[in-house]
Amino acid sequence: MLLDDLAKALPKLRASADAADQVAYARDLWPRHHMAVRAGRVAEHRPGAIVWPTSTKDVAELVKWAQKTGTSLVPFGAGSGVCGGVLPREDVVVVDLKRMDRWRKLDREAPSLDVEAGHMGVPLEERLNREGFTLGHFPSSILCSTVGGWVAARSAGQCSGLYGKIEDMVAELEMVTGTGDVVTLKRRTSGPDLVPLVVGSEGIFGIITSATLRLHPAPTSRGFAAWSFKTTEDGWEAMRLLFQSGLRPAVSRLYDPFDAMLARMGGVKRGDAKAKGADAKGGRASAPGAAPGWGTAALRQVLRRPELMNELLHSRAGGRAMGGAMLVVVFEGTGDRPARDVEEARRLIEASPRAKYEGEGPAQKWLKHRYAVSYRQAPMFATGAFVDTMEVAATWSRLGALYEGVRRAAGEHVFVMAHFSHAYPDGCCIYFSFAGSAAPRPFWGRGPKTQREWDRACEETYDATWRAALAAAVEAGGTIAHHHGVGRSKAPRMTSEIGAGVDVVRAMKRAFDPRGIMNPGNLLPDAHDAHAAEKP
Amino acid sequence: MLLDDLAKALPKLRASADAADQVAYARDLWPRHHMAVRAGRVAEHRPGAIVWPTSTKDVAELVKWAQKTGTSLVPFGAGSGVCGGVLPREDVVVVDLKRMDRWRKLDREAPSLDVEAGHMGVPLEERLNREGFTLGHFPSSILCSTVGGWVAARSAGQCSGLYGKIEDMVAELEMVTGTGDVVTLKRRTSGPDLVPLVVGSEGIFGIITSATLRLHPAPTSRGFAAWSFKTTEDGWEAMRLLFQSGLRPAVSRLYDPFDAMLARMGGVKRGDAKAKGADAKGGRASAPGAAPGWGTAALRQVLRRPELMNELLHSRAGGRAMGGAMLVVVFEGTGDRPARDVEEARRLIEASPRAKYEGEGPAQKWLKHRYAVSYRQAPMFATGAFVDTMEVAATWSRLGALYEGVRRAAGEHVFVMAHFSHAYPDGCCIYFSFAGSAAPRPFWGRGPKTQREWDRACEETYDATWRAALAAAVEAGGTIAHHHGVGRSKAPRMTSEIGAGVDVVRAMKRAFDPRGIMNPGNLLPDAHDAHAAEKP
Repeated sequence: MLLDDLAKALPKLRASADAADQVAYARDLWPRHHMAVRAGRVAEHRPGAIVWPTSTKDVAELVKWAQKTGTSLVPFGAGSGVCGGVLPREDVVVVDLKRMDRWRKLDREAPSLDVEAGHMGVPLEERLNREGFTLGHFPSSILCSTVGGWVAARSAGQCSGLYGKIEDMVAELEMVTGTGDVVTLKRRTSGPDLVPLVVGSEGIFGIITSATLRLHPAPTSRGFAAWSFKTTEDGWEAMRLLFQSGLRPAVSRLYDPFDAMLARMGGVKRGDAKAKGADAKGGRASAPGAAPGWGTAALRQVLRRPELMNELLHSRAGGRAMGGAMLVVVFEGTGDRPARDVEEARRLIEASPRAKYEGEGPAQKWLKHRYAVSYRQAPMFATGAFVDTMEVAATWSRLGALYEGVRRAAGEHVFVMAHFSHAYPDGCCIYFSFAGSAAPRPFWGRGPKTQREWDRACEETYDATWRAALAAAVEAGGTIAHHHGVGRSKAPRMTSEIGAGVDVVRAMKRAFDPRGIMNPGNLLPDAHDAHAAEKP
Repeated sequence: MLLDDLAKALPKLRASADAADQVAYARDLWPRHHMAVRAGRVAEHRPGAIVWPTSTKDVAELVKWAQKTGTSLVPFGAGSGVCGGVLPREDVVVVDLKRMDRWRKLDREAPSLDVEAGHMGVPLEERLNREGFTLGHFPSSILCSTVGGWVAARSAGQCSGLYGKIEDMVAELEMVTGTGDVVTLKRRTSGPDLVPLVVGSEGIFGIITSATLRLHPAPTSRGFAAWSFKTTEDGWEAMRLLFQSGLRPAVSRLYDPFDAMLARMGGVKRGDAKAKGADAKGGRASAPGAAPGWGTAALRQVLRRPELMNELLHSRAGGRAMGGAMLVVVFEGTGDRPARDVEEARRLIEASPRAKYEGEGPAQKWLKHRYAVSYRQAPMFATGAFVDTMEVAATWSRLGALYEGVRRAAGEHVFVMAHFSHAYPDGCCIYFSFAGSAAPRPFWGRGPKTQREWDRACEETYDATWRAALAAAVEAGGTIAHHHGVGRSKAPRMTSEIGAGVDVVRAMKRAFDPRGIMNPGNLLPDAHDAHAAEKP
């Protein structure tokens, strides 16, 4: 029906309602989806149809049709989101933008590139490199994510220390609003800047069709260093020192003792071949040597009693026994500058007796295997457990409270490890990895008997973990997300976190999408509800 | 009457309707105001009353009262704006925030400072320095501008190359909206970021009462360098090279041949003692050694025939005869880093035969006299002429078109000189200085006979210059402002420049200020009009 209507109204637009396509576009990589599928609920969120526009005009015509018919649309990049930003229904059309992948204009002087939203990450960077440039954006999802997805969800790449997050790279955006109008928003130097409203809007205002992105000359040299610290706190103090001194390592990643120990034990080969990583989006991709053993028997035991391992990790003695925390940095640029930056970083950090230099090896290893651990969730889910990641951020002064708070709150439900990436002069992102199961609570109690009970118990643990962890993040003065976006997984907290801004977002929603057809239920359900209530 | 109403409703709020206060708060430093005053129209824009709140609570009570009574409010910092952001009427209350100047919280770790909006610039930086920090914000108006003014108008400081513009420094804002609600907006890492909506909103959404600003460790060392170039284009290519290589000089200023010649001729002493600067807001403050002679007889002659001097400046031969363009840079930081940055900058720039190294002197001179030329408009206006400045920006690829376009367009009406400051990896700001008078057009025609005629003719030249220059800036793909804000002087162009965004700004205006009482007529008159039309 939806497909027939589409075919009649927009005969040239490629569209499908095949069962296979419906299943493929029913979800993104939100672990809650995986759990639903594992529990046999494969078809929960299949869309009514999928379309593949090839131009902004296509998109505008589609949206005008959708507005007229009151059909909801869900924009879709490469589906690597991990927060349920994509959650179709039968009356919804999914708009896959991957056939919009042209380079519209490479401005070599600015330098900048106007590129369509459906362009995939790796081919973009490779082609830019051939032109002598880099975007400097390397999310661990780069193999399965698009420009539009990065912008809509405020992605951060592994080199954010030097190049910033995607929002720092966007000079101009083209969007088809919920009314089917094509608008171009430019970074402004006076008056209100509207680009930051659309970056991170996760499809609720319209469909981003192209972005003009700032480029940089491709780096020609790199510098590497690593240090170990007795405690994680000592490690993040060193990161703070680096960034506040004005140094800008492209990469700086601090691993807590357990994470660092896995790296030391694992080594390159093991990380390469056997690692069972935590995270499809993939910050966890980047433990030096990669984290092994997620699927091992020992870890499966731990998951049934997460509080024991968490307790050990909480203790200083435990941290020291595991060899302490480790910080790896990579500088990049041209000539001998990265090498000189490494020298300066060493002078700064090794002035403290708490830091032990570990050579270039760990950082070089990290670079070599930067994407190696991604796409490894499946084995973990196959054991009946689940894994997920939570990336939050805070100013340096609140970082300790955020780290302790989230670790304690989530640690009652799941096994928790963490690393610190994406540092800035004023703060840092903490990337938690969770692993949990249907472990009975209290742990000496009886476990679920049937598969159905097990699945439900797993989902309960999962939901309880997130509720507790998000509440703890807000309580500690941190953010609810750093670069995975909000989606449906964090939407319930968004309204409280955004505070007074909710009225503004509602007002914008009304202005951009008066019929409320754009990705309904995502990001800020309040905005949609308030909105729906106001409809005649 | 307004005062009586205020006294009755808010007896504890300090308020005045003294004639002297009314005149003092009738305007900011928009040259159009100066011309009106010179023409005897002193009382054109006096407000009905002025109030001095001392707390956010005071402001909230005031706005609630204003909303109830339908009284318009104009927020006021230190009045150094140069675009008519302040333009009261008799039914308007001016809200001077300078009695709100407390430090609410210095967070040494982040590091950041939550400071009230009325804090003046110099005392802020001085006190921060004593604490070991710098804000890194040095607008030439720093002696007569406030935190709230910086944020509301998107100020840039002389060290923006390293520390960014004020919008890059704002981590959090407190604002009393047009409904009297106190809202706190934080920089977000997910979802839409609302801080950039209020930064630059120039009082039309509410009154900014405090800002949490990112700090940096105070620099302990500096490095200086200067180069001359045959042409201005060669100079900006060198700036582009610097910023795209990853170097971040705190200061980088390129002077066109005439501006540079004045610097060379003037020297420190003359610049210090006799300079008649162009600009109260003061980018022109910073010509090396400062621009002398604005008030001289020779220049007065030129002003009656601006096209002649402009023609000379346009020619390559003229530029060479004057000694070419000059670029000065200042690096700052700690240890030997600035010195090493200078070495690297020299290697980069002097690889081109077009650059001639001029030693450290010009940049040191600049630093010593960085604020020396400000506050020198008066003598120029006293001669019957006028001066003004226009700061626009563009990507590097459009910079030449912007430079030529504005110079040509304005050059038909006034004498034009320029320097280039506030560079970024992807573009640069051009700071034009205009000097004009009632020069008859064509120049051999009869001049105005009476003072009244002269004043009117001056105002006509002034308005024609701005109309032409703004149109040329938009035509060349540049911005209409870079760091002076929009105000009433550029508001007529804002609607077209902001394009589709105008609907969003209108929607926000309705959400934040449903009665339309906040600084009506400023920034985006359309928003106010559309708004007023919708009132019951």
